[in-house]
Amino acid sequence: MKTIEQYADEVMQRCDELGCISQSSTYLDRRYLSREHMQANEQVSVWMQQAGMQTWQDAVGNVWGRYQSAAPDAKRLVLGSHLDTVINGGKYDGMLGVIAPIALIDMFTAQQIELPFHVDIVGFCDEEGTRFGTTLLGSRALTGHWQSQWASLCDENEISLRQAMLDVGLDFDRVLTSKLDPDSLVGYLELHIEQGPVLEEHNLPTGIVSGIAGAKRMQLTVKGMAGHAGTVPMNMRQDALVGASTMIIAIEKIAQQAGIVATVGTIENRPNAVNVISGQTTFSLDIRSDDDALRDATLAQIIQTCEQLAETRQLQLSYTLTHDAPAVLCHPPFIHALKTATKQAGITPLTLLSGAGHDAMAMADICPIAMLFTRCDKGISHHPAEAINSSDVAASLRVLDHFIQHFSTTLAQATQEER
Amino acid sequence: MKTIEQYADEVMQRCDELGCISQSSTYLDRRYLSREHMQANEQVSVWMQQAGMQTWQDAVGNVWGRYQSAAPDAKRLVLGSHLDTVINGGKYDGMLGVIAPIALIDMFTAQQIELPFHVDIVGFCDEEGTRFGTTLLGSRALTGHWQSQWASLCDENEISLRQAMLDVGLDFDRVLTSKLDPDSLVGYLELHIEQGPVLEEHNLPTGIVSGIAGAKRMQLTVKGMAGHAGTVPMNMRQDALVGASTMIIAIEKIAQQAGIVATVGTIENRPNAVNVISGQTTFSLDIRSDDDALRDATLAQIIQTCEQLAETRQLQLSYTLTHDAPAVLCHPPFIHALKTATKQAGITPLTLLSGAGHDAMAMADICPIAMLFTRCDKGISHHPAEAINSSDVAASLRVLDHFIQHFSTTLAQATQEER
Repeated sequence: MKTIEQYADEVMQRCDELGCISQSSTYLDRRYLSREHMQANEQVSVWMQQAGMQTWQDAVGNVWGRYQSAAPDAKRLVLGSHLDTVINGGKYDGMLGVIAPIALIDMFTAQQIELPFHVDIVGFCDEEGTRFGTTLLGSRALTGHWQSQWASLCDENEISLRQAMLDVGLDFDRVLTSKLDPDSLVGYLELHIEQGPVLEEHNLPTGIVSGIAGAKRMQLTVKGMAGHAGTVPMNMRQDALVGASTMIIAIEKIAQQAGIVATVGTIENRPNAVNVISGQTTFSLDIRSDDDALRDATLAQIIQTCEQLAETRQLQLSYTLTHDAPAVLCHPPFIHALKTATKQAGITPLTLLSGAGHDAMAMADICPIAMLFTRCDKGISHHPAEAINSSDVAASLRVLDHFIQHFSTTLAQATQEER
Repeated sequence: MKTIEQYADEVMQRCDELGCISQSSTYLDRRYLSREHMQANEQVSVWMQQAGMQTWQDAVGNVWGRYQSAAPDAKRLVLGSHLDTVINGGKYDGMLGVIAPIALIDMFTAQQIELPFHVDIVGFCDEEGTRFGTTLLGSRALTGHWQSQWASLCDENEISLRQAMLDVGLDFDRVLTSKLDPDSLVGYLELHIEQGPVLEEHNLPTGIVSGIAGAKRMQLTVKGMAGHAGTVPMNMRQDALVGASTMIIAIEKIAQQAGIVATVGTIENRPNAVNVISGQTTFSLDIRSDDDALRDATLAQIIQTCEQLAETRQLQLSYTLTHDAPAVLCHPPFIHALKTATKQAGITPLTLLSGAGHDAMAMADICPIAMLFTRCDKGISHHPAEAINSSDVAASLRVLDHFIQHFSTTLAQATQEER
């Protein structure tokens, strides 16, 4: 029988292999409904079958495998993540959460483990939204939140989503048949690389996600008065860029005090000439927290402070909300079970927030969710330098193994009572 | 005999008229060696002749008029400014300094005023550098700083300076013949709109320029670490944009304390995505003063502070000097004479720095210089909204009149002794 370290090595090899299925010959790029998407689904199906699973592809293009329970009326515990990538992405973001569970099932099959529920592994077809600009298409098809108007979403080559589905033998109008019955589900568990530096900072291979941060995004515009860099004295200026700079610093300070993350990622300045005082500066604000109320209160404080800073300098401030997604919390009994499982694997349990969005956000609409993070090198993600190591994968497999064993004996019962 | 107010009205009308000679039908655009440049020279010559002046065009394309002195071996007092414009410019920047002196000479002719020196008015052909990217071509031809390699400078249509000169009957190789003999000059006086808000702030029609600021320009680059806006905690970030913001604010503060002007006009951020922490921010710095030593000391303090700010945040700072022009001081006896003339005109004398460059910078290489500023509306320049009023033009004419009268009796002597 293979050791868990050998399984982990196999996971690493399979991530390498999957990372070669790309629309580009020089970097990893695998988008929804591409030939490479179908090729990846096919490869994952083969690995699922080798692990003793039944496999199928649903109406939206997600690939599935089932480790069948012998129990009558068995429900489904779903493990999974996504198989699509960003352009020039890494080979672990998404893929790890599909490939590692297959290794786990391979272990179960080898050990002839019997469970009171089916374990379904899903490889979601589109989480990143790279091709059609709309994220979480794969998981949202399962939740009944598939939108009919998405039929006319177009990719960069003006191919509609409907046409792209037809091109690989899928039917847009049949997507709703992939909707899952919430009563058939015990929960959804997603393994994912952290995409941040916290686990590395704490020297831990894995971490338990408390929730997925809600995010609001705003665009703020500061208007001042453009002028000649040589002829307008300092005390007579209404410099939009200096005003925006005071706001950017205030945003950092307020976020730190509130204990949440806020980021000014974009800035555009006008006229942006070396000898002209800035007349207008526009910048973005992205603010996230697992506590929607705290996030909103912090945002209100930021806006109020920016308005005061604008007034002090006789600048005009305007702003618009461009994005608003509430936080999604992980299921507390699942968090507890993951903590227990982490300890059983000999790892100090650390709970952390997921600042990035995941398929679990969509799945939370129909069942309790949980997420386990695997440490990644320097927190780098969405980049070819994305890296993890085999021993952390082994640690992740141990935690998942303990979680499912524990779950099979106690939590399935408790969760069902609670719901 | 016309009143000075009537002369001022005529100056306003002539500025309107000259403002209609444009390469564009919708905005003012008059570039060196264009058909419209020749048309403007022709129109200005006509006005000069009507004022009783002898006129000529020199080898580089500057238009000249002379109010002849009867004195033997009379030297030349040169008054002037430029007749070219920026694209979509205003009708006073440059033109006022040619047209108003013509009105002055018209008054002298009417009053049969005799002077111990010639008064030469020059309409420079290229100050802005709009066509060939190199500024002050007209005045630099007079100073002997004309460069042979400029022959191959090309405009946006790939027409070389040499060819463009040929097209209007000028010969690049003859430009050096327009060089003036310094011994023939008593000085250069330029009337110009302020292009800044200081006179308006002080409710004054005119101001006396102490000097033309020297400018240094730098490009500063702050390197941090790009990262996911949701997954990297605030205290683990190396946010280049926040670092740059602290520097922009420090620059303003240091410049204010030093009493000089410093401007961050451009900013470029990477990757400049709403959900990505800034990895690199580049910004420009333009710093000016009429005191080169003060400017350099202030710049050194700015760089030192920026380096400290970068270090605090574990950012890397790099910078390059992109421009370096020393300050040019106006001739103290001329400043004194302009103060006296201003008082005689019933105006409170205010001395101020010219933050912008002017033909006087080039002329300072061969003779003492002075500049008089006329108030302009809201300090707006290089824009169609550039505006002055007739009564401020009348005030400017009065100051120039007193200056020349005063000069003719006392200063010419003093200046010659001093040189």
